[in-house]
Amino acid sequence: MKASRAVQKILANYEGETPGVKAQLCRMLMAGKLGGTGKMVILPVDQGFEHGPARSFAPNPAGYDPHYHYQMAIDAGLNAYAAPLGMIEAGADTFAGQIPTILKVNSSNSLVPKSAPYDQAITASVEDALRLGCSAIGFTIYPGSAAGLDMFEEIAEMRREAASLGIATVIWSYPRGEDLSKAGETAIDVGAYAAQISALLGAHIIKIKLSTDHLEQDEARKVYEGQKIDVSTQAARVAHCMQAAFGGRRIVVFSGGAAKGADAVYDDARAIRDGGGNGSIIGRNTFQRPRDEALAMLAKLIEIYKGKD
Amino acid sequence: MKASRAVQKILANYEGETPGVKAQLCRMLMAGKLGGTGKMVILPVDQGFEHGPARSFAPNPAGYDPHYHYQMAIDAGLNAYAAPLGMIEAGADTFAGQIPTILKVNSSNSLVPKSAPYDQAITASVEDALRLGCSAIGFTIYPGSAAGLDMFEEIAEMRREAASLGIATVIWSYPRGEDLSKAGETAIDVGAYAAQISALLGAHIIKIKLSTDHLEQDEARKVYEGQKIDVSTQAARVAHCMQAAFGGRRIVVFSGGAAKGADAVYDDARAIRDGGGNGSIIGRNTFQRPRDEALAMLAKLIEIYKGKD
Amino acid sequence: MKASRAVQKILANYEGETPGVKAQLCRMLMAGKLGGTGKMVILPVDQGFEHGPARSFAPNPAGYDPHYHYQMAIDAGLNAYAAPLGMIEAGADTFAGQIPTILKVNSSNSLVPKSAPYDQAITASVEDALRLGCSAIGFTIYPGSAAGLDMFEEIAEMRREAASLGIATVIWSYPRGEDLSKAGETAIDVGAYAAQISALLGAHIIKIKLSTDHLEQDEARKVYEGQKIDVSTQAARVAHCMQAAFGGRRIVVFSGGAAKGADAVYDDARAIRDGGGNGSIIGRNTFQRPRDEALAMLAKLIEIYKGKD
Amino acid sequence: MKASRAVQKILANYEGETPGVKAQLCRMLMAGKLGGTGKMVILPVDQGFEHGPARSFAPNPAGYDPHYHYQMAIDAGLNAYAAPLGMIEAGADTFAGQIPTILKVNSSNSLVPKSAPYDQAITASVEDALRLGCSAIGFTIYPGSAAGLDMFEEIAEMRREAASLGIATVIWSYPRGEDLSKAGETAIDVGAYAAQISALLGAHIIKIKLSTDHLEQDEARKVYEGQKIDVSTQAARVAHCMQAAFGGRRIVVFSGGAAKGADAVYDDARAIRDGGGNGSIIGRNTFQRPRDEALAMLAKLIEIYKGKD
Amino acid sequence: MKASRAVQKILANYEGETPGVKAQLCRMLMAGKLGGTGKMVILPVDQGFEHGPARSFAPNPAGYDPHYHYQMAIDAGLNAYAAPLGMIEAGADTFAGQIPTILKVNSSNSLVPKSAPYDQAITASVEDALRLGCSAIGFTIYPGSAAGLDMFEEIAEMRREAASLGIATVIWSYPRGEDLSKAGETAIDVGAYAAQISALLGAHIIKIKLSTDHLEQDEARKVYEGQKIDVSTQAARVAHCMQAAFGGRRIVVFSGGAAKGADAVYDDARAIRDGGGNGSIIGRNTFQRPRDEALAMLAKLIEIYKGKD
Repeated sequence: MKASRAVQKILANYEGETPGVKAQLCRMLMAGKLGGTGKMVILPVDQGFEHGPARSFAPNPAGYDPHYHYQMAIDAGLNAYAAPLGMIEAGADTFAGQIPTILKVNSSNSLVPKSAPYDQAITASVEDALRLGCSAIGFTIYPGSAAGLDMFEEIAEMRREAASLGIATVIWSYPRGEDLSKAGETAIDVGAYAAQISALLGAHIIKIKLSTDHLEQDEARKVYEGQKIDVSTQAARVAHCMQAAFGGRRIVVFSGGAAKGADAVYDDARAIRDGGGNGSIIGRNTFQRPRDEALAMLAKLIEIYKGKD
Repeated sequence: MKASRAVQKILANYEGETPGVKAQLCRMLMAGKLGGTGKMVILPVDQGFEHGPARSFAPNPAGYDPHYHYQMAIDAGLNAYAAPLGMIEAGADTFAGQIPTILKVNSSNSLVPKSAPYDQAITASVEDALRLGCSAIGFTIYPGSAAGLDMFEEIAEMRREAASLGIATVIWSYPRGEDLSKAGETAIDVGAYAAQISALLGAHIIKIKLSTDHLEQDEARKVYEGQKIDVSTQAARVAHCMQAAFGGRRIVVFSGGAAKGADAVYDDARAIRDGGGNGSIIGRNTFQRPRDEALAMLAKLIEIYKGKD
Repeated sequence: MKASRAVQKILANYEGETPGVKAQLCRMLMAGKLGGTGKMVILPVDQGFEHGPARSFAPNPAGYDPHYHYQMAIDAGLNAYAAPLGMIEAGADTFAGQIPTILKVNSSNSLVPKSAPYDQAITASVEDALRLGCSAIGFTIYPGSAAGLDMFEEIAEMRREAASLGIATVIWSYPRGEDLSKAGETAIDVGAYAAQISALLGAHIIKIKLSTDHLEQDEARKVYEGQKIDVSTQAARVAHCMQAAFGGRRIVVFSGGAAKGADAVYDDARAIRDGGGNGSIIGRNTFQRPRDEALAMLAKLIEIYKGKD
Repeated sequence: MKASRAVQKILANYEGETPGVKAQLCRMLMAGKLGGTGKMVILPVDQGFEHGPARSFAPNPAGYDPHYHYQMAIDAGLNAYAAPLGMIEAGADTFAGQIPTILKVNSSNSLVPKSAPYDQAITASVEDALRLGCSAIGFTIYPGSAAGLDMFEEIAEMRREAASLGIATVIWSYPRGEDLSKAGETAIDVGAYAAQISALLGAHIIKIKLSTDHLEQDEARKVYEGQKIDVSTQAARVAHCMQAAFGGRRIVVFSGGAAKGADAVYDDARAIRDGGGNGSIIGRNTFQRPRDEALAMLAKLIEIYKGKD
Repeated sequence: MKASRAVQKILANYEGETPGVKAQLCRMLMAGKLGGTGKMVILPVDQGFEHGPARSFAPNPAGYDPHYHYQMAIDAGLNAYAAPLGMIEAGADTFAGQIPTILKVNSSNSLVPKSAPYDQAITASVEDALRLGCSAIGFTIYPGSAAGLDMFEEIAEMRREAASLGIATVIWSYPRGEDLSKAGETAIDVGAYAAQISALLGAHIIKIKLSTDHLEQDEARKVYEGQKIDVSTQAARVAHCMQAAFGGRRIVVFSGGAAKGADAVYDDARAIRDGGGNGSIIGRNTFQRPRDEALAMLAKLIEIYKGKD
C-alpha cells in the first residue's frame, strides 16, 4: 500500500532508522480507518496482568477471551492491538495478518509488595515478537522509580535488538517513584519529561498519560512560570508534550486511564488532536463497555481524529 | 496414537505454538486411563525438597525410593509424573518412555531463613529435560513475593527456550508474599489472578490451588461484590479460575494440598470437574498412603473425571 | 580394571548418567585399598582456606607443603584426594595419575565478616578440573543460608557442565543459616534433609556430617516422634540419612569434624559402616597427626570398612 | 586532511592505541575553526535528559528540535557535537558527515529518588555509535558515589570494545558521592583526582568541571599545603588538572556549568587556555541564548583559544 | 636467555602450569640486576588511583608523567613495572620490550564512601594485557571484606583466562574488612592467611604486606601460642608467611607501605631476604624521592638481595 503524504512526512523524521522499523511504523500508520491520516487509535489489553482478571474483565465478561479483543480491534478499524505474550499467542493464528500487533514485553501486577521498588518483569522477547508476527514491542518505564535506571537499560538493549531485526519500539512512559507525589505522576512538567526521556531512549512511538496543570518539581516550576509556558488547557499541555518529543518529530499517543463517561473520552481526544498529538491508546474505556457501545465510541473517536467532530 | 476430538479441541487453543510443544501436550493428554478425555491426573513428588524427606516419606517409607513413584504413576494409569532432577534421573533409564515426565526445574526448601524473600532456586535446565526425555518443565512462581518479578523473568526465558526445543511448560502459580495474608494465598480473587498471570506468561498447563471464598484485595472485592461474581461453591470458584485462564483456552489442574480424608479428595475432584477444570495434581494424598490405598484412590479419581461418580 | 560386582551395583543406580561420569565414579570406587568394596576413604585438605594455614598445619608443619598430602593419600591407599585449586596444582605434575583427585571448586574463609550471609566463593571451574585430570568437582552448599538458593543454582549449573564433560560431582552439604541453631546444624532431621537436597540436586557423591539425635524443626519433630523413627544410635542415624539419599541409591560419605581421639574416629567409622554408609572423608584427623600415626589410623579405618574390626 | 604539527604531537601521546581511535581523535582535532590548533570547543546537549526538556529548552524553544543543535555546531565551526541516542538519531541522516559526533551512552535524570545512589543508565552502545557514524562515545562517571566502582567497570568494558572498533572514548568525570560535600564536588583536589582517574581508565578525552580553590580531603590538603601547590587562580588550577592528566599527555576539556554572563564564559576560556587546557565543552551557555548571541559567543571563544583575545 | 638454576628451581614448583605462564615468570625472574637470583624488586605505581595524584606525585612532580616511572624501573634494573591501564598505555610504545610489565587490572580510590564495602573496580582485562605486551596481570583482593568472596570469584576467572593465554597472575592480598581491626590488617596470623588464600586461588606471585607480631583472631592465637610459632622478628614472620605460601613453593614479594627513612627500607629488605622471601615491591619509597636518591636506594636494595649488604 502506498504511504500517504502525511505518513511519509512522519516517517522522514526517523532518520537513520532501519527500513524494517520504518516499514512497521508505516504498516501501523496505514492500518484501519485512520490509515494514512498520521493519527492512530490503539487497543491495549494488559490490564489483566496489571490489575487482575476480574477487575479488568468482569464488567464485560466476554473480555476474558483473548479473541474478543482481537476481533474488537479489527472490527473497529484500529491501527494496532497491544497485549502481553499469552494474549497475543492465544489469537496469533486465527487473526494472523489482520491487524498490526504490539507485544507488551514487560508487566507488573498489583500483588507486588508495597516495599518493593516500582518495577516490571520482562515477560517476552524480541524473538517472540518476530515469531508472532508483531510490528512492535511495547515496554513500560517508570521514570522516578529506584528501578528506573535499570528499566532504561533494559529497553535500550531491547530496542537495539528489535530495531536491528525490523521491529519498532513503543515506550509506555509512566512516571512513578519514591519521591513523586500522586499528583506529580500526571503533572505537566513530569509528563513532558517522560516524553523527552522516551524520545532520547529511541522510542519510535511514545505513550504517555494526559497531564494536569500541576507542576511537581521546584526547579521546573521556576522555568514554567518564568517562561510563561501555557499549560492551562489540555490541548496546550498536549502541545507542550509534543514539543518535548523532539518538537513533534516522534509519534506520541495518549492513554486515557480508568473507565469514565463517553463525553470525557471524546473531550480528551479533541484535546489530543488540537494539541497536535498523534492519537489515543484506549483500553478499559473500550473493553469494559458492551461491544456495541465500545464500537460506537471508537467510531466516534476516529471521526474526531479525522477532524469531523 | 490418534488424538481424540476432545484433545484436538484443546490443542487448537495453543495458537502459534511449535508442533513440538503441541506433540508433548498431546502425549500427556493421551496418556493413561484418562487419555483422550481432556482430563488429567498428575503425580508430583517434589515435597522432599520443599518439606524434607521425613515429613514427606516417613508415613510410607517405600517413598524414599524414587522408583516407587514412577511405578505408582504408571500402575495407576496417570497422565504424567513430575519431580526434581535427582528424582527423575534416578529412574530415567528403568522407566524410559513408560510415562510422560515433567522436570520440576526450580525448588525451595523449609530451611530458608524467614527473612529471605519467598523464592526458589533453579536446579535444572531445559537441556536436562531434553536429555532425560521429559515432556515438560515445571516451574513455580510466587506472585506477590518481593522476588516475584524475577521469577517471572526466569520462567519467561526458560519457557521460550523450552518451547523452541519442543518442550512444554507447566507453571505452579502459588501466590505468596510480604503483603499477602495467609488466607489471601488461597483467596478466590488471588487464585484467579494467579491463573491469569500464568496464562499471560505463556504457560501451557497451569497448576493452581483450589480457592476459598475469601477476597483479599480491596479493589478486587469491590468488583466481585459489585458484579455479583459467584464464588460461593468450589465448582463456581473453579469455573471462575477457568475464565481467568483465557476463558478456558488453557489447561488448568488443581492441587490438593496436605494429606486429608479420601472423601474430601473426591469432593475436590468433583468440584474441579463440575467447574470445567482439567484435573488434579495430587502428591501427598497419594504417596503418603499405603500403595493399595493410593491406587484405589487414584482409580476412583479417574472415574470421577470420567464422569462416572 | 574390571569393576567388582559391588561397584557395578552402585554404578547401576546412576541411571541416565553419562558414561564419563560413571567411569570417574568407577575409578574412585576401584582405587586404593578399599577398591572394589563399594566403600571409600577420602582425604580432603581445604582447611587452609576455611580456617587459615596455622590452625590447619601448625600441629604438623609438614602439611604446609601440598606434596605431603598427595603422598599421604597415595601411601595410605585412599580412594581420592580433595583440595582447592592451588593445592591440586602444586602437585599436579609430580603425582599425575597416582590417585583420583577431587577439585574443591568453592571455598569460604574465617575472615568473612559476621554480617555477611553464609556463602562461599567459586574459585575454580570444570575446565580446571579437566585440565588437571581430576575425577570430580567438589562443591559446598549451605542449606539454610540466605545465600543457599544461589548456591544451589551455582552447583546445578556446574554439575550439568561437569557431567556433560565426564566429570563427577561431590556435594559437601553443610546446613548453616540465619534461622538454624548451632545444635541444628548437626540435627538428624536437618542432616537427612541435607542429604536429600544433595541427591535432588544431582550429586553423585554426597558428603554430610554425622548427626546427633537433636531434632531442629518443629514440623519435622512431629513426624519423627509420630512415626517413631529410630535416631537413637549413630548407626541408626546413618541409616536414616542413607534412606534420605534415595533409599541408598547415592554414595554418601561422612565427615568427622575437628581432630579428636583415635577411638572416637574408629567408632564413627563403625557406625557409618553399620548404618550402610559408604565411608569417611577425613581431613584434620589425618594431617594434624604425625605421618606415622596418621597412616596407622587410616589403615585401621580401612580394616573397619572391610568389616574386619 | 593532513594533520597539523600540534595535532600530531597530541596524537603521539596515545601510545599503543589503535589507528582507528587515533583517526577519530585526529578527525575531531582537525574539524571546525579550531582545526589543527590542538584546541577544541564541543557542543553537548544532554541536559534534556539530565534536567528535563523545559528547564533545558524553554529559554530558547528552538532547541526542542534536535536539528537546531546540529546546525548550531556546524555553523559555529565547532569540533564536535555530543548528545544522547535519540538526539543523535534525529539528525543522523540530514547532517551525516558534516560534524564529528559523540554519542553520550549513559544518562541520569532529576526524577531519580534521593535515596538511590548517584548513578546513570547505559542507554546506548558502541554498536549504536558505529551505526550512527559517531567518532566517540561519551560516558559519565561519578567518582565518590556508592555506584562509582560499578561505573568504572562499565566504562572500562565499553572503552575496550570501542577502541577495538576504532571509536574514541570521552569520559565526563563528575565527582559526586555520599561522603562528598557540595563544595567538594568542585574542589581542586577532587577535580585533579577526577582527571587522574579518567586518564587511568583510558579516556582519550577527559571532561571535567572547572575547580574552585577549596580542598576537600584532609589527607590531600596536607599535601597541597605542605608542597605549596598553587591553586590560587583558575589558570593555575587548570594547569594542575593537566598535570593530573598524565602531565598533559591526555586531552582535557572543561565544562562551564549553568548559564551565566558572557564575560564569565570568556574568562573561563582564557583560564583554560592559559593553564594549558585543551578547550571548552559548552552546552547551556550556548543553546539557552538566542541563536545569534550564541554564534557570537562561540566565535569569540574560538578567538580566545586561538590566542587572539 | 638461559634460565639460572635458581630460577629453574622456582619454575619447577609451578606444576601443571602452561608453558606461557612459566615463560613470563622466567622473563620477570631473569630481568634486571637481580636476574637469575630468584629475587625480585618490582616498581608499582597505582597510588594515583588509590590516593589521588597530588598525594602521590606532588612530592616529586616528575612522577606525574607516566614515562618517568618506566624510565626509573629500567634505569634501576628492576624486574618489572606494575601500573593501571592508563599508565601502562602511556608508555607502551616508547618502552616496548624494555622491561616486563604487570597490568594492574583492578583499583579502588579514596573517594569511595565509607559506607560502601571494601572493594575495587575491574578496570582492565586480560585482553588488554595481551595487547599491551604485559607479562602478568595484577589483582587486589581484600580478604575479610563483605565483598571479599566476590573478589575471589573475579580473580579466579581472570587468572584462568590469563593462564590459558600465557599471562601470569600477581595477587595483591590485602586483608581489610568489617570485622578486622586496623592492627589486624597487618597481624601475622592474618598476613599468613592472606598468603595462603592467594596461593590457593592460584596466584603465581603473591604480594603481601610485612606483618607485625599482633595476633588478630582468637582461634588462631590459641594455635600460635600453643604451637609456639616464632613471630618475634620480621625475618621470622617472613619465614612463616613463606610457609603459608605452600612451604615456599610460590613467589612472595612484600610491600613496604608509606614513604619512610631509607634505613627502615633496607632493614625491611634484609628481613625479607633472611626470612626466605623473594623480594620487594616498592612504590612510594621510590617515586616520592628525587630520582638520584631513588636510584641509589634501589641499587642498595639490589645489593641486599644479592646478599652483599
